[in-house]
Amino acid sequence: MYKKMSQVSYNTIYGINNCISFLKTDKKFSIQNIFINKSSKIINDNKIFKLVKNKSLVKYLDKDNFNRKFNFKHSQGIVIRFNGHLTASLLNKNDFSKNSCLLLCDQINDPQNLGQIIRTSECAGVNGIVLPKHQSVQISDTVIQVSQGAFFSLNVYSETNLNNTIKYLKSIGFWIVGIENSINAQKWHQIDYNEKIAIVIGSEGKGIRPLIKKSCDFLGTIPMLGKTNSLNVSAALSAVLFERQRQLENIL
Amino acid sequence: MYKKMSQVSYNTIYGINNCISFLKTDKKFSIQNIFINKSSKIINDNKIFKLVKNKSLVKYLDKDNFNRKFNFKHSQGIVIRFNGHLTASLLNKNDFSKNSCLLLCDQINDPQNLGQIIRTSECAGVNGIVLPKHQSVQISDTVIQVSQGAFFSLNVYSETNLNNTIKYLKSIGFWIVGIENSINAQKWHQIDYNEKIAIVIGSEGKGIRPLIKKSCDFLGTIPMLGKTNSLNVSAALSAVLFERQRQLENIL
Repeated sequence: MYKKMSQVSYNTIYGINNCISFLKTDKKFSIQNIFINKSSKIINDNKIFKLVKNKSLVKYLDKDNFNRKFNFKHSQGIVIRFNGHLTASLLNKNDFSKNSCLLLCDQINDPQNLGQIIRTSECAGVNGIVLPKHQSVQISDTVIQVSQGAFFSLNVYSETNLNNTIKYLKSIGFWIVGIENSINAQKWHQIDYNEKIAIVIGSEGKGIRPLIKKSCDFLGTIPMLGKTNSLNVSAALSAVLFERQRQLENIL
Repeated sequence: MYKKMSQVSYNTIYGINNCISFLKTDKKFSIQNIFINKSSKIINDNKIFKLVKNKSLVKYLDKDNFNRKFNFKHSQGIVIRFNGHLTASLLNKNDFSKNSCLLLCDQINDPQNLGQIIRTSECAGVNGIVLPKHQSVQISDTVIQVSQGAFFSLNVYSETNLNNTIKYLKSIGFWIVGIENSINAQKWHQIDYNEKIAIVIGSEGKGIRPLIKKSCDFLGTIPMLGKTNSLNVSAALSAVLFERQRQLENIL
């Protein structure tokens, strides 16, 4: 006779910033374990331990065991395993007030890029990120790690069809702004980012898909001044999001 | 009797974008070899081959040999080995005209960050980057690779003492703008970026060193709107450089 194992897949994060953000998040996750390297400085870091409600989940490992179990370069002596839903499934119009900003990622494929995009978006006051369920990188340990904790303070929505999402967002008062590398677009700072705005970005190679581009109310671009014509998508996004911030501050 | 070997150290880059930028650069490098994977699509890419002046430097390898020799994830079938000076040693006031912009990197330690910084700077029309000779990451294959070819279109200067560089830049008419994470600084968009500007950025953990901060004419900051307070240095730089670009365009 054998007992059927229940298969639970865990996410694993490490490092002080990420773990503190995890322990402070409003998102609903359940912790499997918090692993601590007994020989690391973190053992004296009360900032972390006072955030842990259930102390029995903390496992103290000696240095060799910790390093054998976790082969991370910058764990800083702490690793958390958890599970739960990484994305929310439904956009709800009550989630958005005046001047809300959403980011729609069309076919971003690189987890490093998505992690940076989440990090920059959170710092720039974005209210949520929409990822398509298909033909897009999904939230993974790498994405969360690169986001440096930002993932835990920012809603990520998973949607089947980005075109339907755009229709819905328009129906609840969002303006849709596509950002792309094109001469047939306004300069990014000529666009008015006041009110409810959804910013659409595409993959680095291909940009935004044509159908989605068509449903944008405005198209913005960042003209390249050098020879390489290859601004990283998260760098472009940073320029756009902080231009939005500048405009909002100059009006308030 | 033995013959003394002359030790030449080579840099190695790969991928179409990087290699095209290398072949177009005005910087003075000498090519050891251009290695081509005979089974890759690049074999039909005339765009690349017409840039190669000395065809005898091209070595065609079959797939197995190429992959055994070069273990790169995205080589796209081309690898170039070259040598030469990666940085220029002297800033010359004749290199800079009205509205020139230099970037001074104080203790940036992560090659990925430096690569992104070079990439963003080149796209944003920066005229040169100054790296300190000590306590800073230096130009390496990784930095060049991450820059996606931008390194080959942008001067990188190596200077012993950043404070002396700042004094010199002031003497030739530059304004020095430090960017840091501080409430005691102006918002980044309140700074006037017209005229000759040198922008100083510091390491992600520690920011700009105090003595260098003191010698800045202006200090700018990007207030964080989220909870994580951890904008990546190259994302912050992107916001600043394109704000400069916006200001220049609105005046012209």
